[in-house]
Amino acid sequence: MTKLIGNAIFGQSGGPTSVINASAAGVIQEALKQKGTIGKVYGAAHGIKGILAEQFYDMSKEDPAELDLLKTTPSSALGSCRYKLKKAEDDETDYKRLLEVFRKYDIRYFFYNGGNDSMDTCNKISKYMQKSGYECRVMGVPKTIDNDLWGTDHCPGFASAAKYIATSTMEVYLDARVYDTGMVTILEVMGRNAGWLTAATAIAAFKGLGPDLIYLPEVDFDLDTFLVDVKKIYDREKKCIIAVSEGIRTKEGKYIPELGGDLAKDAFGHAQMGGTASILAGIVKEKLGCKIRAIEFSLLQRCAAHCASKTDVEESYMAGRTAVEVAVAGGTDQMVAFRRAPGADYACEIHLIPLDDVANTEKKIPKEWINAEGNFVTQAYVDYVLPLIQGESSPPMVDGVPRFAKLKKVLATK
Amino acid sequence: MTKLIGNAIFGQSGGPTSVINASAAGVIQEALKQKGTIGKVYGAAHGIKGILAEQFYDMSKEDPAELDLLKTTPSSALGSCRYKLKKAEDDETDYKRLLEVFRKYDIRYFFYNGGNDSMDTCNKISKYMQKSGYECRVMGVPKTIDNDLWGTDHCPGFASAAKYIATSTMEVYLDARVYDTGMVTILEVMGRNAGWLTAATAIAAFKGLGPDLIYLPEVDFDLDTFLVDVKKIYDREKKCIIAVSEGIRTKEGKYIPELGGDLAKDAFGHAQMGGTASILAGIVKEKLGCKIRAIEFSLLQRCAAHCASKTDVEESYMAGRTAVEVAVAGGTDQMVAFRRAPGADYACEIHLIPLDDVANTEKKIPKEWINAEGNFVTQAYVDYVLPLIQGESSPPMVDGVPRFAKLKKVLATK
Repeated sequence: MTKLIGNAIFGQSGGPTSVINASAAGVIQEALKQKGTIGKVYGAAHGIKGILAEQFYDMSKEDPAELDLLKTTPSSALGSCRYKLKKAEDDETDYKRLLEVFRKYDIRYFFYNGGNDSMDTCNKISKYMQKSGYECRVMGVPKTIDNDLWGTDHCPGFASAAKYIATSTMEVYLDARVYDTGMVTILEVMGRNAGWLTAATAIAAFKGLGPDLIYLPEVDFDLDTFLVDVKKIYDREKKCIIAVSEGIRTKEGKYIPELGGDLAKDAFGHAQMGGTASILAGIVKEKLGCKIRAIEFSLLQRCAAHCASKTDVEESYMAGRTAVEVAVAGGTDQMVAFRRAPGADYACEIHLIPLDDVANTEKKIPKEWINAEGNFVTQAYVDYVLPLIQGESSPPMVDGVPRFAKLKKVLATK
Repeated sequence: MTKLIGNAIFGQSGGPTSVINASAAGVIQEALKQKGTIGKVYGAAHGIKGILAEQFYDMSKEDPAELDLLKTTPSSALGSCRYKLKKAEDDETDYKRLLEVFRKYDIRYFFYNGGNDSMDTCNKISKYMQKSGYECRVMGVPKTIDNDLWGTDHCPGFASAAKYIATSTMEVYLDARVYDTGMVTILEVMGRNAGWLTAATAIAAFKGLGPDLIYLPEVDFDLDTFLVDVKKIYDREKKCIIAVSEGIRTKEGKYIPELGGDLAKDAFGHAQMGGTASILAGIVKEKLGCKIRAIEFSLLQRCAAHCASKTDVEESYMAGRTAVEVAVAGGTDQMVAFRRAPGADYACEIHLIPLDDVANTEKKIPKEWINAEGNFVTQAYVDYVLPLIQGESSPPMVDGVPRFAKLKKVLATK
C-alpha cells in the first residue's frame, strides 16, 4: 500500500449523542499522532456545510487536555448539520466545490461521523473523488442513538442513551408508585423507525422497576388494542406504565399526531409534531378517567453525558481512532463497525464494512425479540443490550456540575 | 426531662424527592438504635393515611443493608399521600382515630417528613394529642424540592433537584447549539409559587452553558415583554434558551394554561394542565417563525437519584437522625431546620423551629436576587445554591443500572 501524505478533515453530522465527541477525540487525537503522513488535522464546522463554506478549525491549536475532555462532553462539539447531497448525476455543484476545497487544502483523508445519511454522504463523496482521479481516503465513523445502522452489532451513542432511559425509567417507576391512588404514566422515547431505544425501558422492567407495556415502531399500532392492554393492567394494579416510541404508527402508516381530527391538532389548530405520549395520554384519560402523566425524554436522552455508558464511550473512541489507523494503512470507503467476539463474556471487535453496503439501510429490532402481543420485548433483547450499558462514565465535576470541553475553534487560514 | 418510653411511627408525605428516603434512613436507623426508649419503629404506608388505616410496617424486620440503600433510593419508599386534615374544631373524626391508633400501638414518637402541608399536619396532630392529655413527641423533618419552607436556609431535596436541573440544562444547551440554524428552546421547571428550582438553571449559565432568560413565579409574567425579550436575543444569536417555572402567571394571577381562548385548550378542547413551556413554544413559533423545542423536566427532576447532591443526601440523613435525637431528649413540636455556620466556608448547622411558625408559610426568592428586568437571577442566588449541590451521590450500580432499596414491608400485627 502506498503511503498517502496529506491533510485530514473530520466532520460530525446528524443528531448529536452523549458520545459522538468521544469518536471525535479518537479521530483527532489519532490523526494528530500521524506525523509525516497526516499534516494538518481540520475539524469541519457543521459537517459538510463547513467544508463547502471553507469553515474549519485547525485542531492542532487545541489544548490537548480539552481534546481529552471531549470523551465526556455530549453533543457535537464542532457543530453538526442535516445536509443531504444530491446525486452527482443530477447536480455536480457541491461535489465540484468539495473537490476544489480538498485540492486547495490538500485533504487526503476524510472522516465523517454520523448515521445512515452521513454514511451515504461519505459514499457519494468518495465515489466522486475516485471518478475525478483525486486520491482521498474516506472512512465513516458510525453514530446514532437509534442503533439502526446496518452491518454493525450496535452503534456508538445507543448504549449511553439506553442507560439513561433505563435509569430514568426506574426512577420514574418509583415516583409513579408513591400514592395509593390510580395513575397511568406514558413515557415517550426517541426512534422514528426502529424501537431499540424504547425497548431499553425493558432493562428497567428486568429490574422490576419498568413499564408494563412497550410499543415499538416495528409493530403496527392499534389504538383499540392499546386501550384494552392498558385497561387490563390498570384495573388490576391501579398503576400502568407504558413506553411508546415517537415513531409508532397505525397499519395505515399514520403517526399518532397524524391520526386526524382533533387528535391531530395542537392548541393552535396546527398538526402536532411529536407529542405522541401526550396525545395518547389525552385518549387514555378520556377512556379510563384516571390520573395520567405523559413524560417525554426529549433531547435529554441523547445528551445525558452525566449518565453515559463507559463501554459506549470507550468503543466510540476506539471507532474514531480505528478509522484513522485504517485509512493511514490504506483503507478507504468503509465504515468502522462492531461485532461481538465469540464466547460467553462480552467483547467488542472491530470489523469494516463497505460504505456501499451500509448506506441507507435501516436495522430494526428482530421480530423474534418482540413478544406475540406486540407490546413488549423478550429476554433476548435484554441479553443483547445489557453488556453495552456496563460501566459508568461521567464528566469530571467542578463546582458540582460537569466540566465539559471548551474548544478554541481556531479557523484554518484560507 | 422525663424519659418517654414507647413506640415510634414515621411517615412520608407530599411529592417525593431524590433524597426523601435518606431522611427516612436517618429516622429509622436512629430510632432502631434507641433501645430501652423506643420499642417498635413503624413506617406508615402512605403517610397519615396509613396511620388512619392501621397500615404500617415493622421496620425492625427490614434488612439493615436495604435500609442503608434508602440513602440513595429516590421517591417515597413507604408511600406518600396528599391528605389534608381538617381543623379539629370543624371535624374531630380523623384526630379521634389517630389518638385511638396511637393509644393502641403505644405510639409516643411521631416523625413526619414533608413540606408545608405536612408540617401543618404535624402541628395539628401534636396540638390535639396535647389537648387530649396523650403524651407524644412530634417532630417534623423537612422535605421539598421547592425549597419554600420558612425558617430554614434550604430544604432537603432541593439541592439534588437543582443539581440535576443545572446538569441537564448544560447538556441541553450543548445539544441546542449543534446546528447553524435558528432555534429557541424552552425548559419548564417545577415550582408553583417559588422559583428556586427554575433559578437553578442559572448555575448552568454561570458555567457559560445556560439559559438567556429565566422567568419565575415571583415576578408577574407579561407575554408581550417576554416576546420582546426572546426576539432580541434570537435576532442577535439565532439561539435562545429560556427557563420558565410551571408557576409563572400574569399580574391578574392567570397561569399560562389558563390564559383563555385557544391558548388554554389542549387537543381535546380541555383546559390544559401544566404544559406552560409547550404553550409558550406555540406562541413563540407563531410570532418568530423559528424552530422551537419545549422540554419539561417533569417528574425526572424530582427523582433523579443518579445525579443527586452528596451534600443534600448527607444533610437529609442528618435531618432525619436529628429529629429522633431531639425527640428522645425531650423535644417536640419542632421542625429540624438548617442554617449556615458563620465563615467563608460552607457548613450546615441544625437549628429547631416551632411547628407553629413554619406551618403554611412559603419562602420565596428574595426580590433583590432577581434582576431589574425580572428575567434572570443575580450572582447572589448562584452563591447561595452552589455549596448545596457539591459532591456526587449516586446509587450503587448493578448490571449498569442503579440498585435501589427493596423493602420487605412487613405489616405490623394489629
